[in-house]
Amino acid sequence: MITPPSPGVYAEARRRLDILAKPLGALGRLEDLAAWVAACQGTCPPRPLDRVRAVILAGDHGVSADGVSAYPREVTAVMVRAFVAGVAGANCLARQHGVALRVLELGVDDDLEDVPAEVSAYHIGSSRPIDQTDALTAEDCREALRAGEAIAEVEIAAGADLLIIGDMGIGNTTPAAALIGATFGLRAEEVVGRGSGVDDDRLKHKTEVIAAALHRVGERAVDPFERLAALGSADIAAGVGFLRTAARSRVPVLLDGIVPVAEAAVAEDLESGVVAWCAAGNRSTEPAQQLALDKLGLEPVLDLGLRLGEGTGALTALPVLRSAVLALREMALLADLSPVS
Amino acid sequence: MITPPSPGVYAEARRRLDILAKPLGALGRLEDLAAWVAACQGTCPPRPLDRVRAVILAGDHGVSADGVSAYPREVTAVMVRAFVAGVAGANCLARQHGVALRVLELGVDDDLEDVPAEVSAYHIGSSRPIDQTDALTAEDCREALRAGEAIAEVEIAAGADLLIIGDMGIGNTTPAAALIGATFGLRAEEVVGRGSGVDDDRLKHKTEVIAAALHRVGERAVDPFERLAALGSADIAAGVGFLRTAARSRVPVLLDGIVPVAEAAVAEDLESGVVAWCAAGNRSTEPAQQLALDKLGLEPVLDLGLRLGEGTGALTALPVLRSAVLALREMALLADLSPVS
Repeated sequence: MITPPSPGVYAEARRRLDILAKPLGALGRLEDLAAWVAACQGTCPPRPLDRVRAVILAGDHGVSADGVSAYPREVTAVMVRAFVAGVAGANCLARQHGVALRVLELGVDDDLEDVPAEVSAYHIGSSRPIDQTDALTAEDCREALRAGEAIAEVEIAAGADLLIIGDMGIGNTTPAAALIGATFGLRAEEVVGRGSGVDDDRLKHKTEVIAAALHRVGERAVDPFERLAALGSADIAAGVGFLRTAARSRVPVLLDGIVPVAEAAVAEDLESGVVAWCAAGNRSTEPAQQLALDKLGLEPVLDLGLRLGEGTGALTALPVLRSAVLALREMALLADLSPVS
Repeated sequence: MITPPSPGVYAEARRRLDILAKPLGALGRLEDLAAWVAACQGTCPPRPLDRVRAVILAGDHGVSADGVSAYPREVTAVMVRAFVAGVAGANCLARQHGVALRVLELGVDDDLEDVPAEVSAYHIGSSRPIDQTDALTAEDCREALRAGEAIAEVEIAAGADLLIIGDMGIGNTTPAAALIGATFGLRAEEVVGRGSGVDDDRLKHKTEVIAAALHRVGERAVDPFERLAALGSADIAAGVGFLRTAARSRVPVLLDGIVPVAEAAVAEDLESGVVAWCAAGNRSTEPAQQLALDKLGLEPVLDLGLRLGEGTGALTALPVLRSAVLALREMALLADLSPVS
């Protein structure tokens, strides 16, 4: 059980919010977010969220050879190069908000020789097709968890008031939906979504793949490590390790779409208390993401129909979280305003 | 009829969004917002929204002597001083986002001798209680509209890629709700809200005040100028003039809560085409604001339960609009990404 954000500081932040120069509760959800950040930091008013670091975890997925995505498998490597070149959506948003962004690939099927070697420093390998066999060996799954922990430790050592975790991998909404289904006992039909935009035929096929995977794994899915090895991937297991280390290190995380939320769901089962250190950046169009957020008790900051991944929903939500913190830090107290000149 | 944002540039922006390095439509509402900004500017890709200017229009309301608010009338002047001192919520958010913020009072019942004279440069006077008599004489209403136009002209001359309009005035959700009710043929019970947080007794009384005002004005409300003079106030009429001038000048506006949305509804009736230049920053907790947004065809960027006014909802939403523009400007085209090294 990971120690939660400070309930005492949360209450202190609530009391301060109540005496700011505004009607009681008039900042709505910004007040919840501000109090959560204060509780995570253990201090009220909280420090501004100046040092934000985002990591995109990339990987290929066995199921992507099998028509579950609107895009070919090779796009994963193309996008890794785009992140390195600084021209993808996540790069634009990270620059806008002064966020340090790193991409790391855990299992992209491409030699990526033209890309700096550190991108592949934690390379393990692509996952196997989850409808047919376990995605990872137990050994690879353990290694991927450790890789994610090491990645988080690097970010935290660099100084992080907040972390963001993003994903890139053609086919990755299939294992993410399967993990969410297995975690919460939901059926394939409930968790499947259109991902990058599959048509009705591919959606039907994707549903069958998820159903076959859930059926294949059966009761083994009760154990979160078994579930992760059976239905996940190296990049997803790394995300789980990343989140666990962030929570253990008392660093809050802003989640993004279906993949990071699936990682949070598994991480919470691996070690209770991870999700208390997470906020949800956005509501994705993926049904599984919305179901998991509800189950985890997370209400997203934004609801803009985003479904790009890469951490873009969290990056777009970041200034709202910063506004919440600034209001708590900088607004006058009602009592400090002079009623007469 | 005001010329709308360019349909040709809107279509061009849509075509460009479709070929960016992302799945089709994956940026959701950001894509709508980016295309709208491009259309307003008449150029694609659009310029970044660097120069944003916000104006808070303040005034006192006759109904505030009569128990429709949780706060005493004197708080309007207190908050004007807070804006000048730079310590209110709107100031914090404006600083966060590099927004130039001015407060102007059109009818605050306080000499405000300790405040720079330009704050009162357009002072007309507080409104009369709308349940008993018209809020403004026709002459004062015309003067307030002209004041709003002049205020907008100053902001536009200073250079504005986007304008934000905020409000401050104890009691102002009562005339705003009445204006929205009269504009769209809604009953007092439908448009009334808790404003700054009134209890059930005051809510009942506020409903009666709005119902009496709507009944008193009757068919005169069909004419938007009569409606504004009868149910508005000097600050609200100034907001209407401000919005009309912004639209005529082809400068987009990000709306805030119930008061600016009521102003947009009246401005649209005064001169068709104003609302095409407006986006909605946030969904307020006021029922009238939500009803008016629906009627005007505006979907808010944020839905965070904000109800502070001051332009704070629009200021909080601004970085999302900026993200939309940046994605359209800076993201690589899918065709520009090299599939192999």
